[in-house]
Amino acid sequence: MASGAEGIVLLDHGSGGRATHQLLREVFFEAFERSPELLDAALLEDLQGPLAFTTDSFVVSPLFFPGGDIGSLAVHGTANDLAMVGAEPLFLSCGFILEEGFSLRDLRKVVRSMAEAARALGIHIVCGDTKVVPRGKGDGLYLNTAGLGRLLRSPAPHPSRIRPGDRVLVSGPVGDHGLAVLAAREGLPLKGLRSDSAPVWPLVKPLLEVLGEDLHALRDPTRGGLATTINELAEESGTLIYLDEAAIPVRPEVRGGAEILGLDPLYLACEGRFVAVVSASRAAEALDLLRGLAGGEGAALIGEVREAASRPLVVLRTRVGGERILPVLTGEPLPRIC
Amino acid sequence: MASGAEGIVLLDHGSGGRATHQLLREVFFEAFERSPELLDAALLEDLQGPLAFTTDSFVVSPLFFPGGDIGSLAVHGTANDLAMVGAEPLFLSCGFILEEGFSLRDLRKVVRSMAEAARALGIHIVCGDTKVVPRGKGDGLYLNTAGLGRLLRSPAPHPSRIRPGDRVLVSGPVGDHGLAVLAAREGLPLKGLRSDSAPVWPLVKPLLEVLGEDLHALRDPTRGGLATTINELAEESGTLIYLDEAAIPVRPEVRGGAEILGLDPLYLACEGRFVAVVSASRAAEALDLLRGLAGGEGAALIGEVREAASRPLVVLRTRVGGERILPVLTGEPLPRIC
Repeated sequence: MASGAEGIVLLDHGSGGRATHQLLREVFFEAFERSPELLDAALLEDLQGPLAFTTDSFVVSPLFFPGGDIGSLAVHGTANDLAMVGAEPLFLSCGFILEEGFSLRDLRKVVRSMAEAARALGIHIVCGDTKVVPRGKGDGLYLNTAGLGRLLRSPAPHPSRIRPGDRVLVSGPVGDHGLAVLAAREGLPLKGLRSDSAPVWPLVKPLLEVLGEDLHALRDPTRGGLATTINELAEESGTLIYLDEAAIPVRPEVRGGAEILGLDPLYLACEGRFVAVVSASRAAEALDLLRGLAGGEGAALIGEVREAASRPLVVLRTRVGGERILPVLTGEPLPRIC
Repeated sequence: MASGAEGIVLLDHGSGGRATHQLLREVFFEAFERSPELLDAALLEDLQGPLAFTTDSFVVSPLFFPGGDIGSLAVHGTANDLAMVGAEPLFLSCGFILEEGFSLRDLRKVVRSMAEAARALGIHIVCGDTKVVPRGKGDGLYLNTAGLGRLLRSPAPHPSRIRPGDRVLVSGPVGDHGLAVLAAREGLPLKGLRSDSAPVWPLVKPLLEVLGEDLHALRDPTRGGLATTINELAEESGTLIYLDEAAIPVRPEVRGGAEILGLDPLYLACEGRFVAVVSASRAAEALDLLRGLAGGEGAALIGEVREAASRPLVVLRTRVGGERILPVLTGEPLPRIC
């Protein structure tokens, strides 16, 4: 292409003319294994409902971090949102907003990473769009993905189905993604940090199939971390959720790093974990199931649902045996982690 | 909200915590008439295929321009892409990338404008996402919409169905959007310019219904303008497309303004027009049909399809009676018009 294999993004790449077509052919179509057909919309002839539809924009900084990059993250993030309503992730769109001057080499890396993440998950990237903004009006690359999935079962898991007595599970240790991105951005000398960015559908699908109606709700603890997610579930179900801090899995490297920085791991984002609320009678079975699956080895039973007294609430039984209210994230400890 | 009704976007609004929830409730849910339920994905239980799926990011500058704004444009642009494959626009996602410091008043205006454009078209905005980037890393607001539609008929119109002998129609005058945005951005003292941003489905639907298989291809001349769009159709069908410059409708204000700026209206973007390629035997009927519909009064028959000689090509018969090759847009006359 005009700007060379190791070149940069030019404003002309966003004009819709020859340079745009070249960029599409030489960077996107090759990686996504699509013929260079410029249809306005992708045709999904065989797709049957009921369906789920979601979108997420990604503005993570830095673009590349231990355990992932904005490309794989944009696939996992949106696919995981589909999984959280019990939908099999099937199709993705991608919208790139490129800053003039961004390295085409890095763009190729991101696009390849997206393509690999999609292939690994069996999801198809079927449509896309590329815009270019002038230098100083972006930050290299912002990326939107919208996702379409098919509900595995209907009705889908939903917070309104949460009942007092239910048990709360998490699929693995929390906080890795948020701390790994923060450390990479700030150049912090913390060891052993790595994003947990991963697709959760391989764990969610068997859970849906085995538990059926006893799987009441799912939610992934992304922005705002586990504490905020559990608060959302309490709020939306009108319950009190009681968590046992000692039971919440946090890797020692994350616990240590967060302590040094004065952060609480319960507010650090995950991008490859989920919370499941299940009937008490099936909790042990659900936990065994998750622990027996690749990627679910660190699953844990972390709490239970109770009747709310005056209002929905999350209460944490602390390691030292006390109890405190665990609020939603307020303030802004961790911007641009997704 | 914390920053006041006339306040600004703060980094905290993107944290995923309390401030994000407030922003969603107070700005988005109200305008989009959704209950403040924070499901990870929207459920489309009743949707049946065959479907079409598309995405577009909008980085237009300025955000507000005569005849529209980034909100209405993001609805029309994506809905029109669905219409171009013969699909009824049904559902939209929206992804906002806000710059820290952006006016909440302007955000409300954009969101209301989106909601109105969606209501007018009968399309539902069912899921969304909001991210905040620091000052100097954006330009107020970037907006992505992905769209989902149902094919009215299958097989959909497709450039591969274009045949020598077919006629080429355009649904109205071209170039208004591109020139109106450029003039607004540069503060040019040109009179009578107004974006053509509008949904095309109300014209496309009857055309599909009446012409059936005789409607061979559709494409909207957005970035790159009519000239680039016709080149894409020639390329994808392996034909020569012969256009009659005198027949191409261009409003006098657009022709005059473009002349002053040294621009060719055939390369200026439209956001509410489309090109239709139809069987010769139905061309007059198609033209009458369009002209009889609100918004189609300015439709015109502008050319015909011929056998390509050595390669696909667009040839323009000029006003003075000569012939010249009409190439794809090269260079960058008009950045950030969508």
